Amino acid sequence: MRTQVAIIGSGPAGLLLGQLLHKAGIDAVIVEQRSKDYVLARIRAGIIEQICVDLLDEAGVGERLHRQGLVHHGIELSFKGARHRIDLSGLTGGKSVTVYGQTEITHDLMDARAAAGLPTVYEASNVSVHDFDGMRPRVRYEKDGQSHEIECDFIAGCDGYHGVCRASVPADALKTYERVYPFGWLGVLSDTPPVSDELIYNNHERGFALCSMRSHTRSRYYVQCSLDDKAEAWSDDAFWDELRRRLDPVAAERLVTGPSIEKSIAPLRSFVAEPMRFGRLFLAGDAAHIVPPTGAKGLNLAAADVRYLSRALVEFYLDKSEAGIDHYSEKALRRIWKAERFSWAMTSLLHRFPENGEFGRKIQEAELDYLVHSVAASTSLAENYVGLPFEG
Amino acid sequence: MRTQVAIIGSGPAGLLLGQLLHKAGIDAVIVEQRSKDYVLARIRAGIIEQICVDLLDEAGVGERLHRQGLVHHGIELSFKGARHRIDLSGLTGGKSVTVYGQTEITHDLMDARAAAGLPTVYEASNVSVHDFDGMRPRVRYEKDGQSHEIECDFIAGCDGYHGVCRASVPADALKTYERVYPFGWLGVLSDTPPVSDELIYNNHERGFALCSMRSHTRSRYYVQCSLDDKAEAWSDDAFWDELRRRLDPVAAERLVTGPSIEKSIAPLRSFVAEPMRFGRLFLAGDAAHIVPPTGAKGLNLAAADVRYLSRALVEFYLDKSEAGIDHYSEKALRRIWKAERFSWAMTSLLHRFPENGEFGRKIQEAELDYLVHSVAASTSLAENYVGLPFEG
Repeated sequence: MRTQVAIIGSGPAGLLLGQLLHKAGIDAVIVEQRSKDYVLARIRAGIIEQICVDLLDEAGVGERLHRQGLVHHGIELSFKGARHRIDLSGLTGGKSVTVYGQTEITHDLMDARAAAGLPTVYEASNVSVHDFDGMRPRVRYEKDGQSHEIECDFIAGCDGYHGVCRASVPADALKTYERVYPFGWLGVLSDTPPVSDELIYNNHERGFALCSMRSHTRSRYYVQCSLDDKAEAWSDDAFWDELRRRLDPVAAERLVTGPSIEKSIAPLRSFVAEPMRFGRLFLAGDAAHIVPPTGAKGLNLAAADVRYLSRALVEFYLDKSEAGIDHYSEKALRRIWKAERFSWAMTSLLHRFPENGEFGRKIQEAELDYLVHSVAASTSLAENYVGLPFEG
Repeated sequence: MRTQVAIIGSGPAGLLLGQLLHKAGIDAVIVEQRSKDYVLARIRAGIIEQICVDLLDEAGVGERLHRQGLVHHGIELSFKGARHRIDLSGLTGGKSVTVYGQTEITHDLMDARAAAGLPTVYEASNVSVHDFDGMRPRVRYEKDGQSHEIECDFIAGCDGYHGVCRASVPADALKTYERVYPFGWLGVLSDTPPVSDELIYNNHERGFALCSMRSHTRSRYYVQCSLDDKAEAWSDDAFWDELRRRLDPVAAERLVTGPSIEKSIAPLRSFVAEPMRFGRLFLAGDAAHIVPPTGAKGLNLAAADVRYLSRALVEFYLDKSEAGIDHYSEKALRRIWKAERFSWAMTSLLHRFPENGEFGRKIQEAELDYLVHSVAASTSLAENYVGLPFEG
């Protein structure tokens, strides 16, 4: 098989890249190790920046998002028993975020891809990438017991943190930066009305809690937990009790509980691999970087990478210029590090870090007190939350 | 001896409090363990917020400060070899800071105190404070072999971190918060022209460096050093070489070196004791809290405490209201924690912390890159640097 761009991974990054390349008349094949259903069953992020919405519109898959997504103009910070609203739109000249599950975006992108008859190989095993240091990279995989090879101009590694693309780069060509946080998030999805119209980020002495949502009837809640915890050891009642303890009294009173339809524990990690280009292999999204979920930046960063990469490839094929692909890594990383900083700062501000002691707790409270009363500090939070503007 | 307020300590906090009380017609005696010359020989801070300037004016000791002090409208942040200016005045509606040594302020306050014939006991030994849980506190000390006792209405503990006042409070009445940083500042004072018109805060992989000054002809430089370092082991040449390595190329080229006239190492510490009132004993300044010097907040916080405390005592004597003294601790601490937060954040942003690894370095660079390019983030830094407005 021969294509222009072989995309490894059919998560939102790979699918979105495929759609944007298709719109520009560039051929791409997506190769995915998992099944379509497996990919769709993954519960992930749900807060979408405007730049991501714009990109989905550009890819022609924004219709359902605009119909079903909830536009949020603010978030709330809760500490010392009281809530304080950050007016995202008021502080950023009208910008907002949209609540729409990553699963739904994946669904919309898969539907558009199928409607356009674009090739995706699901359940490809033993996927491997080759010869990306030359002009003719190759992707090999097995499917139904048969070996296959795709010859291409470029490989886009959209295959996540555990994917084969980053793992195929020689170790000495890669520099990685990492912080692992000493706790996780225990998340519950339930078909109950959200406790509030907007997200509530709770700093509490028992640990962080987040009140999020997917729709007016589906809530997503998280509590900071120990890395030793097991999701199956948490009954629904135990989860709701722990969550309620970490909310302000008004929210605790209003909380509607119900059976969990998903319950899982996710570790929190900051990770960046540099650079993001190796000859004719590019990394995008989780394949190159992970943020802790506190700032809701993971999916948005992947979309930003795809924006840079799709434009770079369009420049290559249509304008016959290598400038875009030459600057892809540098441009993407500058934005990534700012989002890494924001995600790290939000994580540091809101979670309980026993190792930072009582001084650390007091510094968090002082920062929150300052933050909600300073227009400058609130604006800084807001401009990061809605997404920093693109540079170049 | 009998007075209304016995002030322990003749540093700037105690002297300023004495002067403000005198202006209001309230009697005070200052008791100081050290000699006048010893106090004057201490080299300390030199960046004065407007609220501190205003308070010195109110105390009638601002004349020389206005004549000799240098008004600064900005600071510079240097990282990755380039400097970026933070326009303090432009970002804060015209506010500024004044460069004027703490030693000079102490001098001016001592002169004013002497001119007004106000009583200060220097070289008092075995100073002790008593009965502040009742209506008639007492201060005892020895001087020239004789025992003395001062009976007073209130005791103001302006005697610094190592002073007797906080140490005299029952341990169970006091809660303390502390962070000790794993490095110190090696400081040099020299009669050389400053490398720049404004202060330069340098984030460098070899460690933090600060280019400060006392006047157009007297420079104050610091480099982050190990706590195991000894000032006497650093020759002047070694100091200048190390400083030069941490500056941007333009500053390194311009640096004028000369013999040090003072060289010392200071550890960096964050410390807060709560509350700041125990019956009729009040703590103010370093007696209750220490900040690392990175934000230039130590002297300014002491001045803020003295402002709250002097107004509280004036309210007590002139308005016959205890509201001021009842709220002193709470009001002062709210401001203190915000300054503690800022000082901790500036310290965290600018110093090398080997324990935070390469991820920590990259986060610092990302934060600096964000900070100097975001108006909101620059404004947040600026409003803290010039001093947050008083609340109530």
